[in-house]
Amino acid sequence: MPYQAPLDSMLFALTEVAALDDLVETGAFEGLSREITAAILTEAGKLASNVFAPLNRSGDLEGCRYEGGAVVTPPGLKEAFAQFAGGGWAGLSAPAEFGGQAMPVLLDAAVSELWAASNMAFSLCPILARGTVAAISAHGTDEQKRLFLPHLVSGRWTGTMNLTEPQAGSDVGALQTQAVRRGDGTYSITGSKIFITFGEHDMAENIVHLVLARLPDAPAGTKGISLFIVPKFLINSDGSMGARNDVQCVGIEHKLGIHASPTCVMRYGEGGGATGVLLGRENGGMAAMFTMMNDARLSVGTQGLGIAERAFQQALAFAVERRQGRPLGASMRTGPAPIIEHMDVQRMLMTMKALVEAMRGLVYVNAAAIDIAHVGRTEEARRAALLRADLLTPVTKAWCTDMGVEVASIGVQIHGGMGFVEETGAAQHYRDARIAPIYEGTNGIQAIDLVTRKLGMDGGAALQSYLAELHDCAEQLAQRNLPVLSAALARGAKDLDDVARWLRDRLDAGAVDDALAGATPFLSLFGTVAGGHVLARGALVPGCPADRITLAQFYAANILSRADHYAQAATSGSGDMSVGAIGL
Amino acid sequence: MPYQAPLDSMLFALTEVAALDDLVETGAFEGLSREITAAILTEAGKLASNVFAPLNRSGDLEGCRYEGGAVVTPPGLKEAFAQFAGGGWAGLSAPAEFGGQAMPVLLDAAVSELWAASNMAFSLCPILARGTVAAISAHGTDEQKRLFLPHLVSGRWTGTMNLTEPQAGSDVGALQTQAVRRGDGTYSITGSKIFITFGEHDMAENIVHLVLARLPDAPAGTKGISLFIVPKFLINSDGSMGARNDVQCVGIEHKLGIHASPTCVMRYGEGGGATGVLLGRENGGMAAMFTMMNDARLSVGTQGLGIAERAFQQALAFAVERRQGRPLGASMRTGPAPIIEHMDVQRMLMTMKALVEAMRGLVYVNAAAIDIAHVGRTEEARRAALLRADLLTPVTKAWCTDMGVEVASIGVQIHGGMGFVEETGAAQHYRDARIAPIYEGTNGIQAIDLVTRKLGMDGGAALQSYLAELHDCAEQLAQRNLPVLSAALARGAKDLDDVARWLRDRLDAGAVDDALAGATPFLSLFGTVAGGHVLARGALVPGCPADRITLAQFYAANILSRADHYAQAATSGSGDMSVGAIGL
Repeated sequence: MPYQAPLDSMLFALTEVAALDDLVETGAFEGLSREITAAILTEAGKLASNVFAPLNRSGDLEGCRYEGGAVVTPPGLKEAFAQFAGGGWAGLSAPAEFGGQAMPVLLDAAVSELWAASNMAFSLCPILARGTVAAISAHGTDEQKRLFLPHLVSGRWTGTMNLTEPQAGSDVGALQTQAVRRGDGTYSITGSKIFITFGEHDMAENIVHLVLARLPDAPAGTKGISLFIVPKFLINSDGSMGARNDVQCVGIEHKLGIHASPTCVMRYGEGGGATGVLLGRENGGMAAMFTMMNDARLSVGTQGLGIAERAFQQALAFAVERRQGRPLGASMRTGPAPIIEHMDVQRMLMTMKALVEAMRGLVYVNAAAIDIAHVGRTEEARRAALLRADLLTPVTKAWCTDMGVEVASIGVQIHGGMGFVEETGAAQHYRDARIAPIYEGTNGIQAIDLVTRKLGMDGGAALQSYLAELHDCAEQLAQRNLPVLSAALARGAKDLDDVARWLRDRLDAGAVDDALAGATPFLSLFGTVAGGHVLARGALVPGCPADRITLAQFYAANILSRADHYAQAATSGSGDMSVGAIGL
Repeated sequence: MPYQAPLDSMLFALTEVAALDDLVETGAFEGLSREITAAILTEAGKLASNVFAPLNRSGDLEGCRYEGGAVVTPPGLKEAFAQFAGGGWAGLSAPAEFGGQAMPVLLDAAVSELWAASNMAFSLCPILARGTVAAISAHGTDEQKRLFLPHLVSGRWTGTMNLTEPQAGSDVGALQTQAVRRGDGTYSITGSKIFITFGEHDMAENIVHLVLARLPDAPAGTKGISLFIVPKFLINSDGSMGARNDVQCVGIEHKLGIHASPTCVMRYGEGGGATGVLLGRENGGMAAMFTMMNDARLSVGTQGLGIAERAFQQALAFAVERRQGRPLGASMRTGPAPIIEHMDVQRMLMTMKALVEAMRGLVYVNAAAIDIAHVGRTEEARRAALLRADLLTPVTKAWCTDMGVEVASIGVQIHGGMGFVEETGAAQHYRDARIAPIYEGTNGIQAIDLVTRKLGMDGGAALQSYLAELHDCAEQLAQRNLPVLSAALARGAKDLDDVARWLRDRLDAGAVDDALAGATPFLSLFGTVAGGHVLARGALVPGCPADRITLAQFYAANILSRADHYAQAATSGSGDMSVGAIGL
């Protein structure tokens, strides 16, 4: 199925919802304007539509092949990646001093949506590479930056994140990979890592692995974890490529989806020890890794958005083409009608569209907050934006990926029997979408992060300022004669406030189980309300098309109305849960 | 993954929720008792666990092969089917005079759950065969019954349902397959059919195709459709096998799931015309087909239940085995805890379990109503039960299959990264489950059937008597000091009543679009409330374990609380939906 960049919708969300102009006005991004943004999106859209989208189905069918330590990516991917790198896309938001284009994270998020939508499996490679750049930029020495960043930014090399081990998944602190000081400033790394995305492939000259490992004298748990740069090929101090490092891909997983993305089992130090250099400080690995993970969490939320947009486009095209039956009450029509004329199909398409627009707004607002946290004009503005970004990131990651699955599933349904036939392509989105709620911290982990860390940040100030914004928006809706939207948003905000207070009270009272039991529905509540908020902001734009108000109203009645349910579930506590009832 | 028949839960639902004793007391089922029911389930459970379950993963991997008109099923399936037939399972609820065991549909539903759970792809074959028996039993001539039923009942032959053509899916009336009277009492059938489940295979000696086709002088639409029996091998009047009929499988689909079930493209009459005999009367095909479809709709709802139970068992086993992290607040524990101890995982397992039990109750209650509709002691009892069965069938089909997908998806999530790896098996359930909301009438079609046909049956009496039962149950809950359960069920019943009135008002006012726009959320509301009802009935059983009350309470707070959301969505009308908003 073809894919077209939804440029109008993206530009609307960038400018009217995520306040692109605020970033322009900071003056921190040279040359940034609405025009250049549109031009960049247009170019990226061409690459996505013409190069990546056509490889989506073939990549799914062919998958990756493991051949004696090497990984062969599906036909065309290597060339597509070369075009991607050649176009400078790998370094869109990277620092200019290392060859990047120093554009905002916001713009990178928008462009990333295009990669995710056109080819979700492929889009993982840039996500990981960008995370590597973020981590080295933030924590690397000048030497490390000089040696690694230019090639990562240019797309000549790619990067990976090595956290998971068979016994250490969500509990990163349980990892056992060892790092031993060699005395020459390098470390000898030994251990196994699993689920390493693009851990080995044939698209780049070198792969820069960021590896979490434990020093012999490290404290237990996450406090004893250090982060190492372990390149596939060692780099000489003059920047030239050196010897092959002692790291091997020993196999790849056979997965439900994203077949064009190799998920590798990596073995470090089978030949005596892989050579790594410390990134950041000893035992400070988690902090450094979080830099990368926060970046990746936003990116994975963006994947939820992208795959939903793709599924939506495909379902819409089918619903316009496919003729079947006559809607009841449409007896004047001769011959079968396109199924989009059936109200039940319209409901499904409206649900997809409303969710996609809500996700897009949320992803972009989150990205803009990350930018302002870096370049806001005042310390106060930066501080507030950082809190906002920290608050929203788990919501964006989890809610957008959950909705990605929901939207992809509706996409299958709209196709009827054809949706279950792989040839159609709808089923691939349903398979691909399913990984996003799992990786980069499962959605359950995001919910626990939200409740146990983010709600309490700065005495709860992050949430309070967000709630104030929601109420302000509801007020404006009322003034603009949109009472239904206003009431729905105000009610959602109240739910959010009430539940957050309840959760914090339970935590304060030491009733941790109650708070943890409510974490996931609370996050769903948060995402649902946040989605209503961004759609409402769109409806408030002077002169916006009436259809945009219709969309916001549909969301309010049909999706935001989930809020009370989530609120009830989130505050139902742990008393109605028991291992005995599960085992009945 | 192994699968164990959940006998305790099944027997509880059969006896305490679906009132098995009421069937026993009719005296219509010779030998039926609680004890014989338990014995039958135990035997079926062994076959499911020991024979079908081990073939589930291999069948998925191997799939079916198309070889020049023939279909080769995955290794082991043929032998498994022989055991199934040999055990008499194909004829469990079939009439005794044709070799069946004349057991109630209720018992067949319970046993069918076992087949669906152990091997969903395989379970389609008996579903179709049983539907064929139902259609021939109800509409066949004595000769047809004599020739076809014994072999279908014994499992020597299987059956299929041939409705869909490329241009005729949900709109069956658009079908073009032709039937021409030959003058010798037979008809010449010509045309193509798609999505024919087990249309060709190697497990049985003959395949009895029931084919919808149109006579040359037939009126347009569904009123001009006739149903024909078109066996793969013709049957001589002495019952012996005759010549190969002019019907061919010309290909099979490559599908998202249920790989062990061949989905066939069938071509009738390429050699001049396939020989068919009329089942029922000319142009009366839809009525005859509905006999088969109603049976199949209950069976597909049962598949939703079965796949959910299987996904649940697998997730539970994983959550007990897999150790990861320590729950917050459980600092006394040394070493990592089984993940079932984490509240967020417990929430997921409780959700799965509560939904499974709700689905089971609903499926069995629906099946029992079908039985009473046939064997109830009074005309009034039979009439009321028929209305109940007609009302519930679309709900059971659609809600249980939607929940099957939801539960299978949670199952993947509980496995974390391992859930996305095909080897684990959780992903297969997610893939397999996805077909059930589509076939045997998409869930959208079920919702439209519910709103436009079922709500108005007998002046709305079917719904009114159901609502009375809900209110009666809520009353009993209040008396038994279960006020939270009582209030939740009463509120759900009120939602159901209010929305049903609103929908009928819209229909009466000619605002068909509003009613159609609300059909799917109304069905979801109905299923959600019905699920709460059956769990509440379980909680009312004197001396039931406290865990069962816990489960009902969890459902009330965490799932039944969706009711208000569905009610709001169902009554939001078509005004917030537009092709313009979709195309924004």
